[in-house]
Amino acid sequence: MTQNIAPILMAGSWQTVAGAGTFQPDNPALGTPLPEIYPITSRAEVLKMLEAGSEAAGTLRATNGARIAEFLEAFAAGIEKQADALVEMAHAETGLPKSPRLKDVELPRTTDQLRQAARAAREGTWHEPVRDEAKNIYSHFAPLGGPVVVMGPNNFPFAFNSVAGGDFAAAIAAHNPVIAKANLAHPGTTRLLAEIAFAAVNATGLPPATVQMFYNTPNEAGFELVSHPLVGATAFTGSKTAGLKLKAAADTAGKPIYLEMSSVNPVVVLEGALQERGDQIAQEFFASCTLGAGQFCTNPGFVIVPDTAAGKKFVADAQAKFAAANPGILLGKRVLTGLVEAVALLQKHGAKLLCGGKPAEGPAYRFANTVLLASAADFLKSPHGLQTEAFGPVALLVLSQNTAETVAIIKHLEGNLTGTIYSETTGKDDADYAAIEPHLRQRVGRLVNDRMPTGVTVSPAMNHGGPFPATGHAGFTAVGLPASIRRFTALHCYDNVRPARLPAGIRS
Amino acid sequence: MTQNIAPILMAGSWQTVAGAGTFQPDNPALGTPLPEIYPITSRAEVLKMLEAGSEAAGTLRATNGARIAEFLEAFAAGIEKQADALVEMAHAETGLPKSPRLKDVELPRTTDQLRQAARAAREGTWHEPVRDEAKNIYSHFAPLGGPVVVMGPNNFPFAFNSVAGGDFAAAIAAHNPVIAKANLAHPGTTRLLAEIAFAAVNATGLPPATVQMFYNTPNEAGFELVSHPLVGATAFTGSKTAGLKLKAAADTAGKPIYLEMSSVNPVVVLEGALQERGDQIAQEFFASCTLGAGQFCTNPGFVIVPDTAAGKKFVADAQAKFAAANPGILLGKRVLTGLVEAVALLQKHGAKLLCGGKPAEGPAYRFANTVLLASAADFLKSPHGLQTEAFGPVALLVLSQNTAETVAIIKHLEGNLTGTIYSETTGKDDADYAAIEPHLRQRVGRLVNDRMPTGVTVSPAMNHGGPFPATGHAGFTAVGLPASIRRFTALHCYDNVRPARLPAGIRS
Repeated sequence: MTQNIAPILMAGSWQTVAGAGTFQPDNPALGTPLPEIYPITSRAEVLKMLEAGSEAAGTLRATNGARIAEFLEAFAAGIEKQADALVEMAHAETGLPKSPRLKDVELPRTTDQLRQAARAAREGTWHEPVRDEAKNIYSHFAPLGGPVVVMGPNNFPFAFNSVAGGDFAAAIAAHNPVIAKANLAHPGTTRLLAEIAFAAVNATGLPPATVQMFYNTPNEAGFELVSHPLVGATAFTGSKTAGLKLKAAADTAGKPIYLEMSSVNPVVVLEGALQERGDQIAQEFFASCTLGAGQFCTNPGFVIVPDTAAGKKFVADAQAKFAAANPGILLGKRVLTGLVEAVALLQKHGAKLLCGGKPAEGPAYRFANTVLLASAADFLKSPHGLQTEAFGPVALLVLSQNTAETVAIIKHLEGNLTGTIYSETTGKDDADYAAIEPHLRQRVGRLVNDRMPTGVTVSPAMNHGGPFPATGHAGFTAVGLPASIRRFTALHCYDNVRPARLPAGIRS
Repeated sequence: MTQNIAPILMAGSWQTVAGAGTFQPDNPALGTPLPEIYPITSRAEVLKMLEAGSEAAGTLRATNGARIAEFLEAFAAGIEKQADALVEMAHAETGLPKSPRLKDVELPRTTDQLRQAARAAREGTWHEPVRDEAKNIYSHFAPLGGPVVVMGPNNFPFAFNSVAGGDFAAAIAAHNPVIAKANLAHPGTTRLLAEIAFAAVNATGLPPATVQMFYNTPNEAGFELVSHPLVGATAFTGSKTAGLKLKAAADTAGKPIYLEMSSVNPVVVLEGALQERGDQIAQEFFASCTLGAGQFCTNPGFVIVPDTAAGKKFVADAQAKFAAANPGILLGKRVLTGLVEAVALLQKHGAKLLCGGKPAEGPAYRFANTVLLASAADFLKSPHGLQTEAFGPVALLVLSQNTAETVAIIKHLEGNLTGTIYSETTGKDDADYAAIEPHLRQRVGRLVNDRMPTGVTVSPAMNHGGPFPATGHAGFTAVGLPASIRRFTALHCYDNVRPARLPAGIRS
């Protein structure tokens, strides 16, 4: 039996192309291949998508924001109609639970983001016009003039999907076409979403190449894509290894690239908080670090606790909870391999394994819930190695002798998405907080108090970003509308331009 | 006689250090060395400045915006008090006319920018807080947490000076310390400005390392500076060659760098405009392109004219005006050498020399006003080579057969600061304008109608920026407050943080 190869969405139609080979994703709950076969798209096809996207960009720039909004809303409605099929496919491809996770949390989050982006497109607030009427100078943020390449992560098959998630919504809201590269862990989900998106494109009369989608391409073609003169910008969410290579290619060509790459999300638990509610914090930590098998970019993977009786009890509590719980199914074999490597690296750099540390038995891809321990002195000897991100249910606990040592640890931290401080509620930890906060603040995008960092609220005030290497630029956020749109815009000034030639809405 | 070596402003005091050698600037009007000797600062001293700047950053973050404003205002007042000495020194170092240029235009522009930055610091508008009170999430733009390195250009010894100009003012307004590297063409002016700035730092009680200044350093130390973990960001204005090397270093380390590197500032003159007022446009072009010996980043160096009788007359008029005028004094020997190389490169790529093309006689550094001509076909054969920037009184005129050819030319243009279209006033060129504008728009930061692009108004609506390689990122501007401040900020979110711990002003 000859199996069909899935088509890609290229230049305004679904096309089955020879490509540069094929691949087949796994069902991570069974550890066996899924039936579908997907093409590896060739360089020539990638360039064809760029040409088509570039032409669509010209049309979209001149398209009314209301029309863009209609598309985003039609897409959201289409996703809701196909919810069951999407949930089935995403579950088969990722092992994530159907309910509540996929059906009741992630899918509604995705449609909510699309509708928030629709509102932003309709209202046009993201343009942020600045007017100097006396001097006849106007400026505002405008589309990039080329397609946005979106490469989504493995861990949110809907909400960060390259053809439906937050980056997609933000790029489209600013009138940019999208060229989406599916994540290899869920090509079938991405294909379904692209089908719904393309139907909405046609129903609302946007240029057909507003949305294009492919599954995979050779590395060199990917580097050419993100650095091509016709590309507007790239949004990448994934591993630091891949992200840094893409960044190097885009940077050399002067093309904007927004990356979300890695984060250990340091948590500092102060002594007063431990004495006041140590049991509760240990439970929160365990729940947050093992939620979704720990596969969140905001997973608390690095916890600084005082080297006191209360701190040691916290470590013992955490170890017991992690060891007692069944590990969840991972998103794929690569995640499992990555965890084996990361934990070995942490141990090599002096971390002591308290529990877990190896794959769990059975056909499913799973890794035992894992706690490692290091002293502050260990950490200060190998600060880079002991910040290795282990993407899964793994955390490194670091025992600190005093506030000065905690500050010394934090001064060696690289950029992170989040940083969290737990402190006693009546003020006993306030002096420590004041000493620690300035150092943590400048190394993270979101500073949290008294709760774990997992759970990224979709709020205009959210910052899902942070200093390198958590992201590529600490001035932008990937979550929170309309702020996330800013990434996919250029600043356009009109100087002495005749009134009839100015963009609609730029004047008061 | 042993001459003294000028001190650098390092870690809170003026220090004479051995350094890694010395250099001596020229008087460009005489072509002879000026008396002062300046040190080439060593790597160890650069690192010392980084440490001191990093410590100052922590203090400045907690400093009231009003105090920052007082410093900027005291600095502006100090500049006015020393205006005569500054003008004398800048004139000797750059050859720019004392009046009106230095005394009546550039110096007041500089103090105006400092006072606008002071207003922004006092009002704190640049923080742009976003509030989600229901969810207890707040975000705003905050200082970078490390010093900003400013490397200023040769052509504005006051208004873009690394220790007093627009980048300096914007970085300080956002509570960042500055490490200024003087331009080699005017170290004495920069020293005087740094002395006034340092007096204002002390008078207003800011940390002494808020402002540091050195003159030169070996290339490798410069690359280490812009990529060092302690640096906040870098702002560079200068040549593309130097800019791209600094960008590569900063990008690899994930450190923000804002660059203003090169721009030929395309001007499209349409047929109707030529028939209506061709003489006037030729005069405007001549005046703009030779103003300040053409040494402006917004100099009109690339003009597309129709290959018609009116277009040929424009070319002949321009050639006559350029040939008849005495060339101005250049900023230095490097500018002269650069012009010789650039004009040779343009000719090598097929441009025909109509007038000028060589250094003018005499001791001063001067280059004959130069016009080159190419056909659209020539340009389309060597689009990259024929976009070589000649920094001085040089322009390439390109003859276009029709609108389609003009669009084809524009589609090959790299990113520019500005793009200008001259059109007939009653609408005869409107169809051509509509066909051309979308292509020009996406390749420039500022779109101008019916006047030359030189003269960058200090307005909140200004965009002095544009796509690569004009700058490093099309989303930011180097001129126009408060927008220019955004470059020197990071997005900080506070999630569930206790009210008393939130920054002042982040809540409504």
